[in-house]
Amino acid sequence: MSTALIILAAGKGTRMESDLPKVLHKIAHAPMLWHAMRAGRSLEPDACVVVAGHQADMVQASALDYDPAAQVVIQSEQLGTAHAVAQAQPALQGFGGDAIVLYGDTPFISEDTLAAMLEARKQHDVVVLGFDAADPGRYGRLITNGDALERIVEFKDATDQERAVTLCNSGVVAAKAEILFDLIAAVGNDNASGEYYLTDIIEIARARGLSASVVRCDEAETLGVNSRAELAAAEALFQTRRRAEMLAEGVALQAPDTVYLAWDTYIGRDAEIEPNVIFGPGVTVESGARIRAFSHLEGAHVSRGAIVGPFARLRPGAELSEDVHVGNFVEVKNTVMHQGAKANHLTYLGDAEIGARSNIGAGTITCNYDGVFKHKTTIGQDAFIGSDSMLVAPVTIGDGAMTASGSTITSDVPAGALAVARARQEVKPGLATKLFNMLKAKKAKQIKEAE
Amino acid sequence: MSTALIILAAGKGTRMESDLPKVLHKIAHAPMLWHAMRAGRSLEPDACVVVAGHQADMVQASALDYDPAAQVVIQSEQLGTAHAVAQAQPALQGFGGDAIVLYGDTPFISEDTLAAMLEARKQHDVVVLGFDAADPGRYGRLITNGDALERIVEFKDATDQERAVTLCNSGVVAAKAEILFDLIAAVGNDNASGEYYLTDIIEIARARGLSASVVRCDEAETLGVNSRAELAAAEALFQTRRRAEMLAEGVALQAPDTVYLAWDTYIGRDAEIEPNVIFGPGVTVESGARIRAFSHLEGAHVSRGAIVGPFARLRPGAELSEDVHVGNFVEVKNTVMHQGAKANHLTYLGDAEIGARSNIGAGTITCNYDGVFKHKTTIGQDAFIGSDSMLVAPVTIGDGAMTASGSTITSDVPAGALAVARARQEVKPGLATKLFNMLKAKKAKQIKEAE
Amino acid sequence: MSTALIILAAGKGTRMESDLPKVLHKIAHAPMLWHAMRAGRSLEPDACVVVAGHQADMVQASALDYDPAAQVVIQSEQLGTAHAVAQAQPALQGFGGDAIVLYGDTPFISEDTLAAMLEARKQHDVVVLGFDAADPGRYGRLITNGDALERIVEFKDATDQERAVTLCNSGVVAAKAEILFDLIAAVGNDNASGEYYLTDIIEIARARGLSASVVRCDEAETLGVNSRAELAAAEALFQTRRRAEMLAEGVALQAPDTVYLAWDTYIGRDAEIEPNVIFGPGVTVESGARIRAFSHLEGAHVSRGAIVGPFARLRPGAELSEDVHVGNFVEVKNTVMHQGAKANHLTYLGDAEIGARSNIGAGTITCNYDGVFKHKTTIGQDAFIGSDSMLVAPVTIGDGAMTASGSTITSDVPAGALAVARARQEVKPGLATKLFNMLKAKKAKQIKEAE
Repeated sequence: MSTALIILAAGKGTRMESDLPKVLHKIAHAPMLWHAMRAGRSLEPDACVVVAGHQADMVQASALDYDPAAQVVIQSEQLGTAHAVAQAQPALQGFGGDAIVLYGDTPFISEDTLAAMLEARKQHDVVVLGFDAADPGRYGRLITNGDALERIVEFKDATDQERAVTLCNSGVVAAKAEILFDLIAAVGNDNASGEYYLTDIIEIARARGLSASVVRCDEAETLGVNSRAELAAAEALFQTRRRAEMLAEGVALQAPDTVYLAWDTYIGRDAEIEPNVIFGPGVTVESGARIRAFSHLEGAHVSRGAIVGPFARLRPGAELSEDVHVGNFVEVKNTVMHQGAKANHLTYLGDAEIGARSNIGAGTITCNYDGVFKHKTTIGQDAFIGSDSMLVAPVTIGDGAMTASGSTITSDVPAGALAVARARQEVKPGLATKLFNMLKAKKAKQIKEAE
Repeated sequence: MSTALIILAAGKGTRMESDLPKVLHKIAHAPMLWHAMRAGRSLEPDACVVVAGHQADMVQASALDYDPAAQVVIQSEQLGTAHAVAQAQPALQGFGGDAIVLYGDTPFISEDTLAAMLEARKQHDVVVLGFDAADPGRYGRLITNGDALERIVEFKDATDQERAVTLCNSGVVAAKAEILFDLIAAVGNDNASGEYYLTDIIEIARARGLSASVVRCDEAETLGVNSRAELAAAEALFQTRRRAEMLAEGVALQAPDTVYLAWDTYIGRDAEIEPNVIFGPGVTVESGARIRAFSHLEGAHVSRGAIVGPFARLRPGAELSEDVHVGNFVEVKNTVMHQGAKANHLTYLGDAEIGARSNIGAGTITCNYDGVFKHKTTIGQDAFIGSDSMLVAPVTIGDGAMTASGSTITSDVPAGALAVARARQEVKPGLATKLFNMLKAKKAKQIKEAE
Repeated sequence: MSTALIILAAGKGTRMESDLPKVLHKIAHAPMLWHAMRAGRSLEPDACVVVAGHQADMVQASALDYDPAAQVVIQSEQLGTAHAVAQAQPALQGFGGDAIVLYGDTPFISEDTLAAMLEARKQHDVVVLGFDAADPGRYGRLITNGDALERIVEFKDATDQERAVTLCNSGVVAAKAEILFDLIAAVGNDNASGEYYLTDIIEIARARGLSASVVRCDEAETLGVNSRAELAAAEALFQTRRRAEMLAEGVALQAPDTVYLAWDTYIGRDAEIEPNVIFGPGVTVESGARIRAFSHLEGAHVSRGAIVGPFARLRPGAELSEDVHVGNFVEVKNTVMHQGAKANHLTYLGDAEIGARSNIGAGTITCNYDGVFKHKTTIGQDAFIGSDSMLVAPVTIGDGAMTASGSTITSDVPAGALAVARARQEVKPGLATKLFNMLKAKKAKQIKEAE
């Protein structure tokens, strides 16, 4: 059976106190919308329809960024969840499979849960995702009779007996697309807030003799985000889970609570991650690499045996081969470092390629920017770049070449050559003493005058 | 009705294991004493009397630093809380209003609570601040009869029935100043420790036919600090509350638990604060600014659209205008950066002014110190400072000027000019190979000799 | 009575998902094995026998690294705990004292607990360490009769009544060495897993009329580590305890949860440690020193009045005398800084000695490596090293000498002299404007061509 996702992402999220639409707030560096889309993607759906509304342009751009095949439809007025789902109907015209309704602000529904819902869909016309709430509070309640879901009651409409039920509604629904839209067409807005509620479809379905059932998931999966405090809690939940998974997979985390992972961070077995390391998006760390404390990585690849940090920053395009060392106060951007290359101290490598085993001295800078254009620096194998070398790109340093410390290198250096660009040292005996004495006398005079 | 604060700050705090007097230990970069003074300040008091004792000079200096109008009186011997309050009497001679007794080691009493006490004071002669303790333990108990406070019993003197009371004494008291001092004059020291207890005034007041009452506050407000562990707990409580307030106000905190705020930190809505950011005192961050991970800010102002970090340090006097970028391993001190100026890598800017849109290359240093004096560096608009430029202050770089990378600039550079101060590059073919071979031969010889 | 330790360290630790043997995984920078050895060392044992098996070479090396007098014996096949202990018998041939069996993956047994076991050993032939488990789960149960230990039952063999017992077996055992080995010789492997269990010795001892007893400890002491998640939990437990001890001793920790201590970190009273500081092994910080945020220390000594950080890195051999300042983005390795010396910004000091009160300018680098050898830099007292000075070692700067900023210093500088090595500044009027215009024109052309 083919599947279509309908992801509701039209809300403003007033309680976020933000100009950004709610579903674009990020967890682990991915918009919440992407988390929902990623879970749905595991079903290998034939269509993914995102219902945008508030700041629809931004939501559309983000949805297409994650999945260029996604269809974005607009809900101009926010008239309730049933109304939102109805906007997806034109996009799914003639689609004969199942539709599953997800929420852009509910990022943790698991792939297994969605698979279980589709499985249950084979037996029932409508399947609702429920959870046993520790504190059911004001959630809608799922009223069941044996295996069958009879209806969903809102808390405010529930009897005391119904309120005693702890099985609550997550809002996630699966049904054959045609049936879903038929049911929604019958939903009215004759209620206090004048909205069209998706939950009403259950009673309508039952009245039409269709079967409905519940699939249960862990309450944590249904966590929704409505405020920045809830967003921070969701972030924390993501981090806690992902750290635990990494520990189980054999990653060495001395202080897991201090390591921040992105949604797509990959780290190999026996890789060692020290405390206070932050992963932005797009990082892979191979087995046996070591990321030392206070390091910050984004869009980088670190190979086996490489050591990064402490206090290192890898920016997008940093490609560290085996046994590369990147040390403290070193920034690497859009640069390939070949096997065994080292840049241990106070260095900026940008738009560069560093050959195998080359040693980059402390204070080296690739001067890659001329105010308008960026240029490339190429360093061969076994080169020795002296401390404080300025490599004014575009420039090439050959294999086994050397630059003298303190040199500004503006022309290519052939293989095996030494390049020097510095003034001869002059020593002026006694002059330091004289200068200090002058300065101190001036200071003394100032102090005296101030008195 | 006018109000006077009496803040008890004479204790040594033996359990702190410190040479610093207890009330000067800091929470969120402000001495605990300041937290108490700040709460009291909300009442717009006519007088603030701080009772110092242990290391009174230090306490006095700190109190005056916060409020130059504060009066500091000395309690030479620590003979109990009533004795401490009595020391304030000469300073309040002829004062006709209410006095409120606060504690320098109790930093969390809220402004609302103090206002409620003064309101209650209008109805009662003496008002005591109480709290319902989750675990009353050895706190003094407030024995009430309806609305009236009958007396305060110390735990050790309490009957079993009195010990069952959970309403406990915070020590904070409000009364007309004259009445307070009259009551205190009647307190004796006929007890096990030979001290004069402020709590005794309630029974004395009642015996004189005066009315006493209780205002309740949250137990957390009454948190007192007696050890470094309690200080750390108080710090944690402050941080937790302040982070939650910031989230509610619309500040984006990915990992709130890793952000350390100062008592006076201000951050605007939709500003983004990444994990592991530390705010020292005196920082304001405007809406829409972004503070990246591992940044450290003190005494700095960051405008809308500015980006700071990761690994940036802003020190006092750092003034970042709109859209300024300060990147990794960059330190900014006493420096104004005008709109759109950028210093992205490995730079020290001290005692400087950087014009709009100017780009400061990696490794640039303002050489502001000659060993005795500090000097200023001025850079115009649209300037391009090449990497590793040493700007030997005092020096001025004009609008649209450029410095060549690796140059030490000792004289002013006019607008539109290029300044170069570097030696011509010489290339010595084959010399690197020769040098490497020599060094390797020497090493081989050493190894052979060592065998 | 003399004592011998038998430390079982042969296990692979499959659930660690690691190529490293389990007992070599670290807590607070020391292998778990060392934690067990350190606890045992407090008994001043006559012998320490480590039973290695899985990757015995690595375990042996680590054991000898901690205690060169340790004896390492090999358990070639892992046939159970009794079999492991039996391997220690040849190493203790003729030893007449007590033996105590510890575990390389149980790092928290306290010195007091071990002393209590030896004390109890004077009264009983065999002493087992037990603990009252909050959740006894599948632990073996200690079945006692008054003071006497009758037997240890494995959970799976226990009756319901026995399972109700909460006194559980830690595995730690003390007995006279001869008796221990005699008992072990009688242990069989007629059980489901075909292993020889140390726990069986109790029943054998009782059958032989020997007395057995239990010493109780806190459950947390018996924490064993079988997975990386448990290792992380053990690390967290170590840190929590050690931070609390430091607070109690008078160390100022603003945010204790963010400070990571090594097993051997020493910090004096009233020293101040800001948030996010990491201590590797071998660090001592004296009273009154201040370690600012985001600092990383390993193998370093920081004296009274010194200030380190923020963003400073001290590596092994960093020796900071009184009142030394090491500031942001500064790395110090194998370097003595004498009283009052300062290196405040963007500096690398390696293999150096810095005289008292000398000021190291921003961007200074000791160029200590020539590609093959490391060399030393010596700086006298009251010297002034200008910003961006490259000190090409071996080199000596005399007392009161000065280097001009931007100079590469390759020869010694006598006391009181000024060394300069830089090119004269040339200013080319209008050339910056011309260059910018050229670049902008090129860019405009590119954009036009791209359209």
